[in-house]
Amino acid sequence: MKDPQSPIRSHCPINFALETFGDKWSLLIIRDLMFKGKRYYGEFLDSAESISTNILADRLVKLEQNGIIKKSVDHVKRSKIHYSLTKKGKDLLPMLLEMIMWSAHYDPATETDAEFIQKIQQQRNRLVKSILAKLN
Amino acid sequence: MKDPQSPIRSHCPINFALETFGDKWSLLIIRDLMFKGKRYYGEFLDSAESISTNILADRLVKLEQNGIIKKSVDHVKRSKIHYSLTKKGKDLLPMLLEMIMWSAHYDPATETDAEFIQKIQQQRNRLVKSILAKLN
Repeated sequence: MKDPQSPIRSHCPINFALETFGDKWSLLIIRDLMFKGKRYYGEFLDSAESISTNILADRLVKLEQNGIIKKSVDHVKRSKIHYSLTKKGKDLLPMLLEMIMWSAHYDPATETDAEFIQKIQQQRNRLVKSILAKLN
Repeated sequence: MKDPQSPIRSHCPINFALETFGDKWSLLIIRDLMFKGKRYYGEFLDSAESISTNILADRLVKLEQNGIIKKSVDHVKRSKIHYSLTKKGKDLLPMLLEMIMWSAHYDPATETDAEFIQKIQQQRNRLVKSILAKLN
């Protein structure tokens, strides 16, 4: 449900994406789920970018409301909540790979592994499949 | 030059992209330059999303500082400034196309032309070339 105080600005596809995850933090949570195998609240806090607890809690709620992530009770520790990407969230992978390639090219201090970039370029489709296979 | 009050959070490639254009407005300006043929200040104001003059002015400065757009004196009206994408800005096209495809799929009210989506899917590389050829 959309907050009536912030109506959708337009149904332009670029704008739709920005309304769903267009802020300085949401894509970092999606990155952690997609590439770093993180799934618990405390793990998202533990990143180089130092997200604050209130921003993290807010973005997790919004990403869930927008159908990008889902919450489940952990199989092992039943008191713990774990997060995972929905199909809609996983479908952001091709866009993220393009973003990674762009940044790796333009950030002189990029921490992106050159081998990973080469893999994206050469085996784009296989890589998408193999990353998706690792997510649950 | 980076503002010393907002140091780079990390050199993760997703984060680098967010530091460069990660807000609710910058990509709309990039969209207007990339797909809508807009190039003047007044044209960017005239969008469905109703950007305000102060946000527009701020984002144009930041996008220029980050090397995504450049300002030139208009050939025809010499008193007018026009904006265009740099190579670094144009290189965002593949990412934008992935974003458009994702949104067109997930926004039930998308205004994306079905034919355009089909074109992206079928002739991705040719489309990139033809859009880039139209930009100056």
